[in-house]
Amino acid sequence: MHAALPQGEQETGAVDTSASQPRDLRRIDIHPDHWYPLAWSREVKRGHAHGVRFAGDPIVLVRTDSGKVFALEDRCAHRQVPLSAGVVDGESIRCCYHGWTYDCTGRCTDIPYLGRERLPNGVRAYPCREEAGLVFVFTGDPLRADTARFPSLDSATDAAYKTRRFGQEVKCHYTFMHENLMDMNHQFLHRRQMGSMRARSLGRRRGEDWIEVDYTFAREAGKQPIGEALVFGQKRGAKPDETQKDVMTVRTEYPYQTLRIRTKDEAMVMDLWIAYVPLDAEQRTNRTFGLLSIRRPKIPILLDAAWPLLVWFTERIFKEDRWIVEREQEAHDRQGADHNHEVFPVINELRALLMEHGVPHRAAGAHDVDARRVHRIVPVQEVPAS
Amino acid sequence: MHAALPQGEQETGAVDTSASQPRDLRRIDIHPDHWYPLAWSREVKRGHAHGVRFAGDPIVLVRTDSGKVFALEDRCAHRQVPLSAGVVDGESIRCCYHGWTYDCTGRCTDIPYLGRERLPNGVRAYPCREEAGLVFVFTGDPLRADTARFPSLDSATDAAYKTRRFGQEVKCHYTFMHENLMDMNHQFLHRRQMGSMRARSLGRRRGEDWIEVDYTFAREAGKQPIGEALVFGQKRGAKPDETQKDVMTVRTEYPYQTLRIRTKDEAMVMDLWIAYVPLDAEQRTNRTFGLLSIRRPKIPILLDAAWPLLVWFTERIFKEDRWIVEREQEAHDRQGADHNHEVFPVINELRALLMEHGVPHRAAGAHDVDARRVHRIVPVQEVPAS
Amino acid sequence: MHAALPQGEQETGAVDTSASQPRDLRRIDIHPDHWYPLAWSREVKRGHAHGVRFAGDPIVLVRTDSGKVFALEDRCAHRQVPLSAGVVDGESIRCCYHGWTYDCTGRCTDIPYLGRERLPNGVRAYPCREEAGLVFVFTGDPLRADTARFPSLDSATDAAYKTRRFGQEVKCHYTFMHENLMDMNHQFLHRRQMGSMRARSLGRRRGEDWIEVDYTFAREAGKQPIGEALVFGQKRGAKPDETQKDVMTVRTEYPYQTLRIRTKDEAMVMDLWIAYVPLDAEQRTNRTFGLLSIRRPKIPILLDAAWPLLVWFTERIFKEDRWIVEREQEAHDRQGADHNHEVFPVINELRALLMEHGVPHRAAGAHDVDARRVHRIVPVQEVPAS
Repeated sequence: MHAALPQGEQETGAVDTSASQPRDLRRIDIHPDHWYPLAWSREVKRGHAHGVRFAGDPIVLVRTDSGKVFALEDRCAHRQVPLSAGVVDGESIRCCYHGWTYDCTGRCTDIPYLGRERLPNGVRAYPCREEAGLVFVFTGDPLRADTARFPSLDSATDAAYKTRRFGQEVKCHYTFMHENLMDMNHQFLHRRQMGSMRARSLGRRRGEDWIEVDYTFAREAGKQPIGEALVFGQKRGAKPDETQKDVMTVRTEYPYQTLRIRTKDEAMVMDLWIAYVPLDAEQRTNRTFGLLSIRRPKIPILLDAAWPLLVWFTERIFKEDRWIVEREQEAHDRQGADHNHEVFPVINELRALLMEHGVPHRAAGAHDVDARRVHRIVPVQEVPAS
Repeated sequence: MHAALPQGEQETGAVDTSASQPRDLRRIDIHPDHWYPLAWSREVKRGHAHGVRFAGDPIVLVRTDSGKVFALEDRCAHRQVPLSAGVVDGESIRCCYHGWTYDCTGRCTDIPYLGRERLPNGVRAYPCREEAGLVFVFTGDPLRADTARFPSLDSATDAAYKTRRFGQEVKCHYTFMHENLMDMNHQFLHRRQMGSMRARSLGRRRGEDWIEVDYTFAREAGKQPIGEALVFGQKRGAKPDETQKDVMTVRTEYPYQTLRIRTKDEAMVMDLWIAYVPLDAEQRTNRTFGLLSIRRPKIPILLDAAWPLLVWFTERIFKEDRWIVEREQEAHDRQGADHNHEVFPVINELRALLMEHGVPHRAAGAHDVDARRVHRIVPVQEVPAS
Repeated sequence: MHAALPQGEQETGAVDTSASQPRDLRRIDIHPDHWYPLAWSREVKRGHAHGVRFAGDPIVLVRTDSGKVFALEDRCAHRQVPLSAGVVDGESIRCCYHGWTYDCTGRCTDIPYLGRERLPNGVRAYPCREEAGLVFVFTGDPLRADTARFPSLDSATDAAYKTRRFGQEVKCHYTFMHENLMDMNHQFLHRRQMGSMRARSLGRRRGEDWIEVDYTFAREAGKQPIGEALVFGQKRGAKPDETQKDVMTVRTEYPYQTLRIRTKDEAMVMDLWIAYVPLDAEQRTNRTFGLLSIRRPKIPILLDAAWPLLVWFTERIFKEDRWIVEREQEAHDRQGADHNHEVFPVINELRALLMEHGVPHRAAGAHDVDARRVHRIVPVQEVPAS
């Protein structure tokens, strides 16, 4: 396998390797002022509570008897036990221990043995929305929820595409995930699934909170695997360079990432949207939520028939990527610092972007104290369950 | 389920919620100057040694060939390996590694390859007593052992009662256990076992090292479960308020706890004695030793016949309580401080009592150094095994 | 069981017990400037890479397509993932992620997408040798590799002996291993396998980097187990003191250890060579590599026939030793310091020797930074695989 950078990038790349990095990218927390998917809609069942985590903060997602979803801190104000172990009562959630009751704004509305006239403070509520089968929560300052950009998930709700929902917990910092997907020179990792492929970077573009890079691919040896043909399009009898007519664009639009493949006639044949949600306070584990949309062919049933194979293929690729980023995290843990030695300019720019848009790692427990002191009543956007 | 506080307590309760707590109750160690049960008698077999822990300190309980029990530090003075892996030799314990031998005072009496005329210091001995099927050890300053109050375990040795011995390791600070048992407003937790019950606090009393509170109960909906009837007494055709005639008294008499139920004619139908022994130095895990004594009915065989059901019922209740206090501990670990927001005056007084009678958390390893430097020869109270 | 020290030693021993130890032996790292076995030759298969650890440093052993073995830091200079997950390509190792390629000196010779004219620094190479079925690595300053003494493994390659290769991970500091083997007064530990044995120390000798002690043994009760007869020689109808004619010499020649048994006619009937390799940075786990050579009897097939029994016997002994040294380590972890109270002069001298020839425990991660900053091209001693 041999891939190549455009000539100019090679030079820049070689110069970049000695750049000093004053801060450790793996100690930059993801910025909380965004809408993050915290669960699949199907995980939050009607009349039940579901506990999740964002960067160490426990959050309970409650689907009420009417089907609405709201999000609170996952702790009772009384003895701090998780509300997710509680009981949904109409449009409220009741703590399982002494029965304290909270509405969708986090207000405590009943303490059975105390009477309703004197009630203590409640718990923090989070803005919450459901889209495309995902429950999104605005995890930062709730006053910024309305003006924050909500991600576009058009392909996942467009009947012209068939969408696979996938993802798992990955034991690494979210930034490793961004770097892994954006650096297509790592095809060597997938040699067993993809054969010998050559990636060529066509150039990159950068905006204030995004960066994107275009690639073409050429097969160097062997036949195209059938799984890959399903995702990237089949190339019967293609000449060596013909696959280069398809362009893959990988884009980080903070904090999300997309990977799109367009054919020479500009049709988008594949659209992957993916988000990496830190689970623990150290942000050393993330839960990945992916929407992989494949354009339906003229005879739609062909895609349906091939779907199990596509699932198998993408799982294999994802498993290899998960394995390697977890090894990167292990190396960082052992070395105690970021010793990456990057030579690819795209990745160095991506790292700068992730650094700029994140926040320095907070001290352990700092969030919790803030959340406890301030009980903000926030508007809850209630969306019926799909 | 709706329960109520007496009018006065409600008001006090609401005021109490803003009380500042300068110290964290979960960083108050249990006071060592008491008699603690460290094992059931049946666990310490004749001619064998049995290793236990108290607040991180390893202790070996040795039952000699004659049936006496003594307690030493569970380490050989030589290479620090546990004496509990050793061999009982008459009235002594011999280390399994090089055969150093100790008597019941902790004195080293033989080093096989050194001769008996020059022997090194030994290990610390602990005062030790057996009562009611429990092996008690005085874990603090041995000079205070004789004057320290030994708990009254009368019901457990009274033929008028049938006693169940139970307990398990619970992964929480011992103080959560006291609060759990004393706050009977947590009936909601046991709704699956007990149905909908209403607890009413009749008032509390407090002494220098004890606090107790009386409750009555009324069923709000459903039938009395048979398991509960066995413990609290059966109420055939009872009118709604009739159950209130029975009074439950929960008492913390530092460091033990009791729960007693008396009928309207003042007969004690149930007597629970319970102790929570911290196992680790951080006191984040306790082993619970409980003696649950039920007064035998006029036809005693009825209680024996129903015993398996009573065991099943109490295990279910205990399992729910263990689950919730472990969630409380998890929340404390995550929050790094005690954020309880107590509104029930009884519990706030209990917390004050536990704070006053405990000791500030010692630095890790502090005990060990003390124990090693001082070899106190202490009188050992030897009691034949039951 | 009763063993005895020679008269003079007893007195010295008793005096020694109050000796103050300013430093903690369990915080003395093994000295890296030696040849350590890091793998069995059979573990490093032709055309494959094999990851090992030395004191927390990951090292990859690569056996090339031609059968040579070399050793590098087990990380790619690019993204720090383990080279041991890579692909052997001729005489080089290629990283599994982006295909960066390294030769046996640690130099990066190819980055597929960057071109070969501008290549970054590589990784550290370690001097490497194969002997007697073991892969040895010089883990310290490579300039000292040529002058460092390589251990003598004569019996393991001498046809007059049959050699067993054994060893396992043991969760303790390497120093506990030395003390365990050298103090033969611990026969009590093996009472189930060996019966009641009496060890007598005949005296000790000490050089600059070695110490050795001679023992004889006498059976105090019971019959000689057959497993022991295989190792120590059979004594049919032996009189009580006849076994004393065989002399066991235990020697620590830093950092290795040997145990040899010679009969009264000075023939060496058993030769054990053993090394303890710290795996983690804290040096709390070691991997033991042992070569146990037994002199073949006049009818060699007798030894082959008895071999399974010998394996079983030595495994049982080793299992008991592993169990006890892990308890010693646990006690040290709990006590936070070395509270050993040694009375046997041989062991006190051994401890002094291990203290003098080791190095103070390095701060975590210190090695890694050094290794990364300096890329030393070192001569690699390539030895064909056996």
